[in-house]
Amino acid sequence: MSAKDCIFCGMSAGAVDTDFLYLDHQLMVIRDINPQAPVHLLIIPRRHVVSLAYAAGRTSAILGQVFVVAEEMARREGVTLSGYRLVVNQGPDSGQAIEHLHAHLLGGQTLGPLG
Amino acid sequence: MSAKDCIFCGMSAGAVDTDFLYLDHQLMVIRDINPQAPVHLLIIPRRHVVSLAYAAGRTSAILGQVFVVAEEMARREGVTLSGYRLVVNQGPDSGQAIEHLHAHLLGGQTLGPLG
Repeated sequence: MSAKDCIFCGMSAGAVDTDFLYLDHQLMVIRDINPQAPVHLLIIPRRHVVSLAYAAGRTSAILGQVFVVAEEMARREGVTLSGYRLVVNQGPDSGQAIEHLHAHLLGGQTLGPLG
Repeated sequence: MSAKDCIFCGMSAGAVDTDFLYLDHQLMVIRDINPQAPVHLLIIPRRHVVSLAYAAGRTSAILGQVFVVAEEMARREGVTLSGYRLVVNQGPDSGQAIEHLHAHLLGGQTLGPLG
């Protein structure tokens, strides 16, 4: 899938109407439309990073910011003390649905097994 | 828990005999002793980062490297094409077991739900 056909790229470019919970020049945060926990957000690099195979240099710095923004969002959602989980899926075995790198933030309930 | 009592800090300092799969000045990688998938590694910052509440500045850069090293480890373990999942647990609801930030890398089988 090219960036042209990517829903997250469409959101980033303003071509898709989106309710952003957070937006800066590197990252955007939205609610997952199919939530698997009371809090289920997606933290998404605005540029089209297909996979972690491209996670070097400037991309690595952006990915570090994913953790910083995750903590900020957890605070806003009131789950820093109760706890939360960050998940990045990569490829078929993981169930990755959109081929544009993104991190799930899940919280608001006791979470299940990792795998 | 202070860094003094932390098993991961003991590993980092060489005080605990450890079979490292990867080691540099920022990160170390070990196998999870209680694997939840055929491939189950832990990617761990060598300094004692208690939680993502401290994920700013230099720590953010180290966390970006977590993704870079994860991809390298996935390649070594032969799961880049089949897929893998990275998970960071934070606090009680997530089931976090050791209060020193670490990322789980899981692969080698079809993985279950996120939360």
